[in-house]
Amino acid sequence: MMEDKTEKNIRLTIAYDGTGYYGWQRQPDKKTIQGIIEEKIGTMVGDKVLLIASGRTDAGVHALNQVANFKASSNITPYSFFKGLNSLLPDSILIKEARYMPATFHSRYDAKSKIYEYRVYADKLESPFLRHYAWHISRSLDLKPMKECMEIIRGIHDFSVFCSDGDNKNENIRTMLNTDIITRGPNWLYFVFEADGFLRHMVRNIVGAIIMAGLSDISVDYFKDILESKYRKKAGVKAPPGGLYLKHVKY
Amino acid sequence: MMEDKTEKNIRLTIAYDGTGYYGWQRQPDKKTIQGIIEEKIGTMVGDKVLLIASGRTDAGVHALNQVANFKASSNITPYSFFKGLNSLLPDSILIKEARYMPATFHSRYDAKSKIYEYRVYADKLESPFLRHYAWHISRSLDLKPMKECMEIIRGIHDFSVFCSDGDNKNENIRTMLNTDIITRGPNWLYFVFEADGFLRHMVRNIVGAIIMAGLSDISVDYFKDILESKYRKKAGVKAPPGGLYLKHVKY
Repeated sequence: MMEDKTEKNIRLTIAYDGTGYYGWQRQPDKKTIQGIIEEKIGTMVGDKVLLIASGRTDAGVHALNQVANFKASSNITPYSFFKGLNSLLPDSILIKEARYMPATFHSRYDAKSKIYEYRVYADKLESPFLRHYAWHISRSLDLKPMKECMEIIRGIHDFSVFCSDGDNKNENIRTMLNTDIITRGPNWLYFVFEADGFLRHMVRNIVGAIIMAGLSDISVDYFKDILESKYRKKAGVKAPPGGLYLKHVKY
Repeated sequence: MMEDKTEKNIRLTIAYDGTGYYGWQRQPDKKTIQGIIEEKIGTMVGDKVLLIASGRTDAGVHALNQVANFKASSNITPYSFFKGLNSLLPDSILIKEARYMPATFHSRYDAKSKIYEYRVYADKLESPFLRHYAWHISRSLDLKPMKECMEIIRGIHDFSVFCSDGDNKNENIRTMLNTDIITRGPNWLYFVFEADGFLRHMVRNIVGAIIMAGLSDISVDYFKDILESKYRKKAGVKAPPGGLYLKHVKY
């Protein structure tokens, strides 16, 4: 029987709990999401593979639907990758879907937009169950200024001020396609951002400044100044990584 | 100025994420909830203390409102214990309240009933975020037989069959004061049990058998037989510890 060993392009949809990982990107001698999934694919296909994601996530950041693809000359079906990888991977990483894509598909280049969600837990006492999964705010938050800030960042802006790479000489103009604040019960705020691209730490720096507005530590006008000033020092606190979730990638 | 150094009896309400702990009870060279809280109280009062809880919880089991008390000849106020312990303890343990009690108050002996909650997450795919916090069931669950089982265990029963201490010669009769199944959205089932006392692994063994009934692996009549038979082997699977939460202690 002939085996079909032409090269396939396989796309994975992946959820992971980023707690305890050094982020997505493979690093020597460090536990990373890319590193461990590449290793398990390698075990299955008997060869080294390169797994390309829609984008990196930092240490402690989570994903609900990260998208990544790899090429392999193997007759293993997508369903067998789905079953096999889930049995080989630790419980902190879940392959939600695997499927064939045309040879030209590229998880990063072809992404039209990405949606990030930042979860804030507002309560007097910190929950011992949420320390890796939300940003706890104990002081009272005012929703109105935060909504105004979320509107200000919509559209085309130079987001340099919210970028953590200080010496980044690259183009920092991005289009914020949509923003939203979703409340869940009395304690939860989900800040949702859809953009054609995100700079390093951009969401966490934006959320840090918006929470300052919600606490009345800065005004909405001051927030607008921060965005327009492009001076990073004015941007204030960076929200912790555990509240951040890569929610969706659109192609 | 005179200090009030008479012995005080102080009651704590405690929430903890049991992940990574060897349970409540102090053990030499092992990370336990009792051990670490006693250590931090000791740091504050400058003396060894004994912290008495309403009951032990096993490794990996959580608490939303565990109650414990200790006696100390110190003029540190309950509010200072509340603030001080929360600053000394790891984020996985939260002191929710501290207050003075009469000298005779005893967290274990005075407990009238305890409420445990067991959380089941029913979905085809396991969530990487819930592996320490719920029992994942991928097959379809039928609510009706599970509700019937939850009714059968109400009242006074010999719960020996659901107790993990095989050679336990003690009295195993307990009164199940109330039971309930709460559904939250399409995926969550909370099994709630209130009893005057619980045997070792009792909730987890009961939930294990009830899930078998929900999966139609056993009938409701068979579940009734299990309870009445007192033969432990018939009880089947034990639900994993991460789904179990000590919810409330009534005095």
